[in-house]
Amino acid sequence: MIVSIIGTGLIGGSFAIALKENGMADKIIGVESNKEHAAQALSLGLVDEITGWEEAVSQSDLVILAIPVNAVEELLPSILNKVDQQVIMDVGSIKNGILAAVSSHPKRSRFVATHPMWGTEYSGPGAAVQGAFIGKATVICDQERSDKDAVAIVEELYRRLGMHLVYMTAAEHDVHVAYISHISHITSFALANTVLEKEREEDAIFELASAGFESTVRLAKSNAAMWVPILMQNRENVLDVLNEHLSQLRKFKACLEKENYDYLQELIENANKIKRILK
Amino acid sequence: MIVSIIGTGLIGGSFAIALKENGMADKIIGVESNKEHAAQALSLGLVDEITGWEEAVSQSDLVILAIPVNAVEELLPSILNKVDQQVIMDVGSIKNGILAAVSSHPKRSRFVATHPMWGTEYSGPGAAVQGAFIGKATVICDQERSDKDAVAIVEELYRRLGMHLVYMTAAEHDVHVAYISHISHITSFALANTVLEKEREEDAIFELASAGFESTVRLAKSNAAMWVPILMQNRENVLDVLNEHLSQLRKFKACLEKENYDYLQELIENANKIKRILK
Repeated sequence: MIVSIIGTGLIGGSFAIALKENGMADKIIGVESNKEHAAQALSLGLVDEITGWEEAVSQSDLVILAIPVNAVEELLPSILNKVDQQVIMDVGSIKNGILAAVSSHPKRSRFVATHPMWGTEYSGPGAAVQGAFIGKATVICDQERSDKDAVAIVEELYRRLGMHLVYMTAAEHDVHVAYISHISHITSFALANTVLEKEREEDAIFELASAGFESTVRLAKSNAAMWVPILMQNRENVLDVLNEHLSQLRKFKACLEKENYDYLQELIENANKIKRILK
Repeated sequence: MIVSIIGTGLIGGSFAIALKENGMADKIIGVESNKEHAAQALSLGLVDEITGWEEAVSQSDLVILAIPVNAVEELLPSILNKVDQQVIMDVGSIKNGILAAVSSHPKRSRFVATHPMWGTEYSGPGAAVQGAFIGKATVICDQERSDKDAVAIVEELYRRLGMHLVYMTAAEHDVHVAYISHISHITSFALANTVLEKEREEDAIFELASAGFESTVRLAKSNAAMWVPILMQNRENVLDVLNEHLSQLRKFKACLEKENYDYLQELIENANKIKRILK
């Protein structure tokens, strides 16, 4: 199978490694607007060649869109205009905008909307890693709007990557990711800004940064070009969660202000219940 | 050297492993009020025997207090009453209360106040790990209030554990830990409560939890018995940081509400500067 990967960064590059390794792709064509990244993707052996997207789409059996969600929204209708029997899939973190953009496109059914639940705070082809997706979940959205053969190819791909499949509507997906991904990024960004704001006064602070701090703040290294469009497109769900989070934080504040340590204990013990979800 | 470890949990137990391994302790006496933990500490070989604290102090050259900070504050004056030339050290996450409690004690100078910057979200003897402290920083507070020989023994201990030493006043320490540890715990507790609050409506959410979510929320598993006293004793500094954090989060909220994505980009790019501190 000839596979095109549009966007050869962290996610696209990690797909390239996996698809070569498991033999699913006989040839991988990269499409990459950033010249440095294009050269890097070639030199790292992630892709066999770099071409423009039109040539890539015409030559491929499967096209994977691994670019920021706003770019997917822009490019996807043009790609579908050129599609015959190829399968097109995306890996974007948010689905409503992308699906709205192609909802009434005559080739909509060649597109499969997916979201593999894996990522790191790094970006670019150099951030691509081997074995990235193993054991994680991947979401397939609104699969009844896609042709069965297209869904089957995408399912086979994810299974070979070692992922387990979860099916939901785009609307459900977008609510869930607001909780389990987007709010984590916002708290991490805000935590970094909190500490950086005070660093002006307190320089020594950074000598002490422990593993706990690194863990809560590491997502703050995530790429703005990727995250602004995600938060923009999931604005309403994210605001809903952010308001809930602010209200939860204000409970901690009230406990300390009023020296209500029994309630503080209760809040922490309630938070401990997260153990039943995380190992 | 005979060492007593009062509190044979995560930190005390990890000390025990390290001190036996590097040969600093010929014998380790454990003091543990939780009977299950006492039995576990013995069966895991963390300590050679379990006794009451008075007997332990009288037999030891060095006593390490590894119990919650409120318990240290309570017990330390009584321990110093029994001290001749022994060295007493604590490993508590907050210093003002502990030091105030013994400030005018005639044996104050046998006590060295320390805080090794290592921990995990787990607790109890079973959570103790080998090589816990290697490469991390440890803080020694107000060392001019301690006898030189006592400080020298504690310094030697931490160096043999592979830690680098940082010296500061208790007041400085308490401000710094509010930034690099306490606020991370509060955001993590609040994030867990945010998600758990909504789980009632949204059950499937947990199938999708990714590494990013786990990373920001893992501190929410931390023990309430340890954290309520810490937050209580560092109340003013924590409130100061929490207010700053709330104001940083409200900036993200305002960006989304007003759809000001240029400013959102700016906030995220500012947060990215945390890269210069974290690898």
